[in-house]
Amino acid sequence: MTETNDPAIIAEVRAAFERYDRALDDNDVAVLDDSFWESPHTLRYGVGENLYGHAEIAAFRASRTPAQHKARARRLENTRITTFGRDFAVANTEYVILATGKRGRQSQTWLRTPDGWKVVAAHVSMLA
Amino acid sequence: MTETNDPAIIAEVRAAFERYDRALDDNDVAVLDDSFWESPHTLRYGVGENLYGHAEIAAFRASRTPAQHKARARRLENTRITTFGRDFAVANTEYVILATGKRGRQSQTWLRTPDGWKVVAAHVSMLA
Repeated sequence: MTETNDPAIIAEVRAAFERYDRALDDNDVAVLDDSFWESPHTLRYGVGENLYGHAEIAAFRASRTPAQHKARARRLENTRITTFGRDFAVANTEYVILATGKRGRQSQTWLRTPDGWKVVAAHVSMLA
Repeated sequence: MTETNDPAIIAEVRAAFERYDRALDDNDVAVLDDSFWESPHTLRYGVGENLYGHAEIAAFRASRTPAQHKARARRLENTRITTFGRDFAVANTEYVILATGKRGRQSQTWLRTPDGWKVVAAHVSMLA
């Protein structure tokens, strides 16, 4: 079976995950866009929207206002990264919205590409 | 780069996805449990709960009542399966709760194991 959780691979994915997370905190649209697989097959289910393909995801990032961004500042809890072989991984984390205390969840599936690790599918939601 | 969407691999994952989906419809706990990777690293974010490890997920399945099950009957829309190489895939779908018309999303990351294709991470949520 595929080897899981090789420490060197976990370290690579954690670096990509943390780069993406800093870009979320900073609303760094260029890094957000670069973190997702440039494909029509990429998808992102957000809290209030379903986005299909890298272009729709990029348009959504570009449309967010600083106020919308600031209202969603959050801290992470229970972050879990699991890797499979050298080229595939999942990163999941709970989060708490600082302004409201409400709890959410963020799931990403990562793939190693010639351009580095990229998110091929993501799902973000609030806990009901 | 890893080959994506080999038709033979898509067919395998679609069969596993549909088996799991029938088990959801039928509340077939044995098949639901068998569909998830038997590992403490497996996780499932449900609409109202965060479950860590195969044992917590199985306990949740076992605890659901027929009434809870029936209230969540649904139809799928916009189902997307994407495969990476021979051993990894993501399956994502929107759904509509039949009783209420409310819309949700279901994301799964699948891994080929010696015991067949298994879900290593899942996330289910309602669209806000």
